Amino acid sequence: MSRKVLQSLALALLPVLAPWNAPAAAQAADRLPAWNDGPSKQAIIAFVTKVTKEGGPDFVPPEERIAVFDNDGTLWAEQPMYFQLAFTLDRVMALAPQHPEWKEKEPFKSVLAGDIKGALAGGEKGMMEMGMATHAGMTTEEFEKTVSDWIASAKHPKLGKPYTECVYQPMREVLGYLRDNGFKTYIVSGGGVEFMRPWAEKTYGIPPEQVIGSAIKTKFELRDGKPVLLRLPEIEFIDDHAGKPEAINRIIGRRPVMAFGNSDGDQQMLEWTAAGEGPRFALLVHHTDGEREWAYDRESHIGTLDKALDEARAKGWTVVDMKAEWKSIFPESPY
Amino acid sequence: MSRKVLQSLALALLPVLAPWNAPAAAQAADRLPAWNDGPSKQAIIAFVTKVTKEGGPDFVPPEERIAVFDNDGTLWAEQPMYFQLAFTLDRVMALAPQHPEWKEKEPFKSVLAGDIKGALAGGEKGMMEMGMATHAGMTTEEFEKTVSDWIASAKHPKLGKPYTECVYQPMREVLGYLRDNGFKTYIVSGGGVEFMRPWAEKTYGIPPEQVIGSAIKTKFELRDGKPVLLRLPEIEFIDDHAGKPEAINRIIGRRPVMAFGNSDGDQQMLEWTAAGEGPRFALLVHHTDGEREWAYDRESHIGTLDKALDEARAKGWTVVDMKAEWKSIFPESPY
Repeated sequence: MSRKVLQSLALALLPVLAPWNAPAAAQAADRLPAWNDGPSKQAIIAFVTKVTKEGGPDFVPPEERIAVFDNDGTLWAEQPMYFQLAFTLDRVMALAPQHPEWKEKEPFKSVLAGDIKGALAGGEKGMMEMGMATHAGMTTEEFEKTVSDWIASAKHPKLGKPYTECVYQPMREVLGYLRDNGFKTYIVSGGGVEFMRPWAEKTYGIPPEQVIGSAIKTKFELRDGKPVLLRLPEIEFIDDHAGKPEAINRIIGRRPVMAFGNSDGDQQMLEWTAAGEGPRFALLVHHTDGEREWAYDRESHIGTLDKALDEARAKGWTVVDMKAEWKSIFPESPY
Repeated sequence: MSRKVLQSLALALLPVLAPWNAPAAAQAADRLPAWNDGPSKQAIIAFVTKVTKEGGPDFVPPEERIAVFDNDGTLWAEQPMYFQLAFTLDRVMALAPQHPEWKEKEPFKSVLAGDIKGALAGGEKGMMEMGMATHAGMTTEEFEKTVSDWIASAKHPKLGKPYTECVYQPMREVLGYLRDNGFKTYIVSGGGVEFMRPWAEKTYGIPPEQVIGSAIKTKFELRDGKPVLLRLPEIEFIDDHAGKPEAINRIIGRRPVMAFGNSDGDQQMLEWTAAGEGPRFALLVHHTDGEREWAYDRESHIGTLDKALDEARAKGWTVVDMKAEWKSIFPESPY
């Protein structure tokens, strides 16, 4: 066969082979098995079906199919404390031998005494101090190794398994389902960008260049002629609340078509997404399952969901009732 | 035919159809027609050939194939002044009726009198003032429209054609050649990110999310309930010199495999790229053609190429002699 004939043949086969050309609803039934057939699953499938229907009134070209996901409380759990805070506390313990002064200095003193509550009593100032002491002062490569080592060995205190298994299986399915339908999936999280990248690709299928998060400043310098980026104890950007649409605009440069969050910190990202022209989709994960996970919303200090919940109900955003709508919460086995 | 049979058939056809599986060197001969067969073209082809050779010692997996390009002086011209400065001056003229005070205030006064040299005599401070007066104070959507309108109508003062045709045809070919070989191509420029995005996709095939540049701060706010991002007259980040590897790390999160620049502002980006493990490629465009373009390097105020040129020669980076190596400079016809 000539090259031209082969090309024609392959083009003719494409519609049969490319899963994103099959009716989306049909294949989605298999792609979201951890979801009960409730209103949220139906809303996700209906939306994806209409925006991928070529020639339909709501068709969105593949290059504009951007979906953004908060991480803490949306893609993985965030109780009883943000996992990056658990990392921070573990690092304080690990680094303590090099810091004899910490024995007399809060909040480090409380951490070393095993008094987490006391350590957190200092509020944001104390947290920031611990954050900088553990996240800065090394090169980006050294920090990446530290995170990779920690994520490979640390276990969640209640769930008793690695943090990368404390991810929400229904959301992992949504990530895959969207990518199969031509979406580019991004994390847009208040968490540190360099804390997430070392494991996000394996855990969520999201590559480093699609992870957006809070960042500290770095400084380029030559060490023995070799360039390194030194992490400085200074905030570059906090990717939370209004910071999320700001970062989406600066880094992605397109308004997302779909946005997924779980807390008031995601409110502006969802507003920004929903306000775009044409079809848009905004979803909140509502933590309603106190048995299989944690139940919390308006009064919680972690992942406070109050104003965004009111807005979601007023505007008809999709609100996932975890207890009722998720058949399973976490992956059944390591993956 | 069953679906399975069709899949097998398509898989069998793939090697024939996918151009990146054909010997890279063979197809590159056709893909870089604006290059003479000099050392730079040979170096580019040899590098791409070895890193895409599956099973070879220098193979780089597709997901790690990141190539970064400076814009001003690397992808498009930058003489007699940065094109974004031409935009700025045009905007000063356009906005003058709303700013009667500019008649008495430098550097605006000189711009309005047509005295560009006088306007630039105020140095960086004056430039910054004009930049903020023309780039801030509107929403991101309003600014995008302003840039799009300008780029569609403005013409280069010497070349007499739209700025998007003052791009280097040989470099556009390199962009396409790299993408055909599985590379993700990024702009990493000192220019404003929101100045470049409106035309970068059409001009270079580079989508908004792969454009990195300098940025001013934005402020999320609700206007009649509709969220907007207001551009503030405050620098967020200057993407030049050491800022380039810093931005690459923060936004891409991977070290590039190939980097292309033309000035000392690109030196750190090239150093950062070249210092990675495994095969890396660094290239400088040397402006040697005073007839077809402009000839300048060490003494130029625009696109100064001095230290980076010394380093390129010391380290064996590829240096393109534009006059000798580029068969054509600009695209022959509008595209």
